[in-house]
Amino acid sequence: MKPADIICRGLDALRARKPMVHHITNSVVMNFTANVTLCLGAAPVMAPCIDESLEMVRYAGALLLNIGTLDPVLVESMLAAGRAANENGIPVVFDPVGAGATALRTGSALRIADELHISILRGNAGEVLALAGHDGKVRGVDSMDSVGEREELISRFAGDRGLVVAVTGATDIVTDGRSTAVIENGHPLMGRVTGTGCAATTSAACFAAVMDDMFEAAFTGIAAMGIAGEIAAEKAGGPGTFVPLFLDGLAGLDEGTIRERIRASVNG
Amino acid sequence: MKPADIICRGLDALRARKPMVHHITNSVVMNFTANVTLCLGAAPVMAPCIDESLEMVRYAGALLLNIGTLDPVLVESMLAAGRAANENGIPVVFDPVGAGATALRTGSALRIADELHISILRGNAGEVLALAGHDGKVRGVDSMDSVGEREELISRFAGDRGLVVAVTGATDIVTDGRSTAVIENGHPLMGRVTGTGCAATTSAACFAAVMDDMFEAAFTGIAAMGIAGEIAAEKAGGPGTFVPLFLDGLAGLDEGTIRERIRASVNG
Amino acid sequence: MKPADIICRGLDALRARKPMVHHITNSVVMNFTANVTLCLGAAPVMAPCIDESLEMVRYAGALLLNIGTLDPVLVESMLAAGRAANENGIPVVFDPVGAGATALRTGSALRIADELHISILRGNAGEVLALAGHDGKVRGVDSMDSVGEREELISRFAGDRGLVVAVTGATDIVTDGRSTAVIENGHPLMGRVTGTGCAATTSAACFAAVMDDMFEAAFTGIAAMGIAGEIAAEKAGGPGTFVPLFLDGLAGLDEGTIRERIRASVNG
Repeated sequence: MKPADIICRGLDALRARKPMVHHITNSVVMNFTANVTLCLGAAPVMAPCIDESLEMVRYAGALLLNIGTLDPVLVESMLAAGRAANENGIPVVFDPVGAGATALRTGSALRIADELHISILRGNAGEVLALAGHDGKVRGVDSMDSVGEREELISRFAGDRGLVVAVTGATDIVTDGRSTAVIENGHPLMGRVTGTGCAATTSAACFAAVMDDMFEAAFTGIAAMGIAGEIAAEKAGGPGTFVPLFLDGLAGLDEGTIRERIRASVNG
Repeated sequence: MKPADIICRGLDALRARKPMVHHITNSVVMNFTANVTLCLGAAPVMAPCIDESLEMVRYAGALLLNIGTLDPVLVESMLAAGRAANENGIPVVFDPVGAGATALRTGSALRIADELHISILRGNAGEVLALAGHDGKVRGVDSMDSVGEREELISRFAGDRGLVVAVTGATDIVTDGRSTAVIENGHPLMGRVTGTGCAATTSAACFAAVMDDMFEAAFTGIAAMGIAGEIAAEKAGGPGTFVPLFLDGLAGLDEGTIRERIRASVNG
Repeated sequence: MKPADIICRGLDALRARKPMVHHITNSVVMNFTANVTLCLGAAPVMAPCIDESLEMVRYAGALLLNIGTLDPVLVESMLAAGRAANENGIPVVFDPVGAGATALRTGSALRIADELHISILRGNAGEVLALAGHDGKVRGVDSMDSVGEREELISRFAGDRGLVVAVTGATDIVTDGRSTAVIENGHPLMGRVTGTGCAATTSAACFAAVMDDMFEAAFTGIAAMGIAGEIAAEKAGGPGTFVPLFLDGLAGLDEGTIRERIRASVNG
């Protein structure tokens, strides 16, 4: 299937089914990612407390876990909700914000990745490499011999763990160890605004709630972000006006825009 | 009094007195509802910790309680602040977000409604019916035989409990069991943005801080939201640009706009 | 050095070095102040949990502490991170939101000011006077005999404690007890939006991460806010559209704009 066909099919399914996507996420991006969810056509719920998180997840099409402002109590809630999601066949999408930066983050991220079945892991290169067992410090990542070396490591990690990994950056890569998608959409303004990484995870979770193939869901979520980001950047006067225009861009995505804009390849 | 006269009188009082409105509310909408409060002309305070919430409430013109991201500790703070508000004659405005969805939410909402004297309860139909003792599941609500049946149930609940109930949706209804207002203002974009329901509760709380009649305060708060929403929707390119324009619309409300735009009836 | 020269030098340094600024801050303004940090050219981190806050601070160019939505656990995390910052020579910038309003706030603010070495204290007049040992109630402040009397008190407090105090309002004052800067930039719309005070503290912290002189850093941070606020207000339709335009204004600050717009004096 062509990249544009996958995205259009995902968007049709999302708007037809309007799934609930349960977020246990960080306090910085709650409002923004709730609006991302709504603009894409899904319904956000954010219920962090362990006393209800695992009850709430049963209504959800997907569960998003994001450790941006984590504490040990929140991690227990994530694990409980994640186990309930796993038992009920609900995809778990994980954003290991800052993994590699502190012992609490790296340890919590590894525990979540080990104790739960994760369908999609979305992070930047440093965070994903921290989980893949390599030194997660940005310097370490940047000094790797080649981009190819990093890609191979990430692809092997995805294949070994049986999950889809989406690494976002100037170029986005989605891989399950067999198939790999490369997405060239997006705009540098996306890096000047807080929460666009977290929003990419939310976007992947929305599509995971309605698509059977997690590789296609992650690809569709990341591609939709990039296309909306490009559209917004063309009208924005800076990072501030970019944010509302980006949300408009997500809400206004349609088949024509997707086919015209997508610059992505899917191999394997 | 004509609907427009009630709203204009409330807005004049709010801008003249600039009351402090204390919020114990959810993390998703804190920023947005603080800005709603400021745009209407009041001053927001958000002090969730029980060690100070009941001390802070004594400076307030109204107390807003919203259980969107609740936990048991926060509920205790809400109850303590609510009791202090009740003792000091400060109106309590309650938003039972998600009541009916989980045991924690429904139980906490019922406890708040039972242990405190609530002046205004603002929710969607499902949340209000969950508190009124009916199955709060959205499906159950939608399959009720008629809109009239729901309205009668809500009106009886308001009268029995001695509070004002505001149910927002495509059409908004405000009732104290004797008088009922129906508001036709608003725009579908309001449902595409997170926190517009919570913002309606904030708006009602702002007017409750300066108006003696809680039915009129709730009506004014919900009507102001609907009018600002319409104005914003006329200029917005989507849900993203709607948000800042909606805040501008609230800040720019004046007598001419209100008299020109209001589509509401008050009976009883 | 002329005021504009100080600001231009600070901005050049900030954009060249892109320091990480660690925030332990309130839930209302997290998203907004993270975007302020990014728009100025620095990188925000918000890691409130004590299990990692003091580990995280070691990567930071500055540590910002803001008690807007405080609780005793968060205050302990602030103290631990602050001690780690002090030990590592990382400037600590403190925003005592609401000091004077409740015992918890005033007590926590005094404890932070006493136990840590604070480089810059940013607040409104009431908050700063509450820390300086005077009645912090707004009424008390307003009824002081003269503005000059308040300024003298604040200047003496700064000199005695060996910190820089920035008091923002219609006119902003920055003082270390010897030098005093007065800034006339800004716009009344900044008072109609939540978090502009907190954002001024963030702005000061960004410059504290790259400038050696804390007086110059605080002056530069407050002046940058005022200039961006003026630019945004000229285009905004109200407080709502002001916010994204203000962030654009921060991101777009350049030497020409600064030299054209700055209305400030530095004495002493």
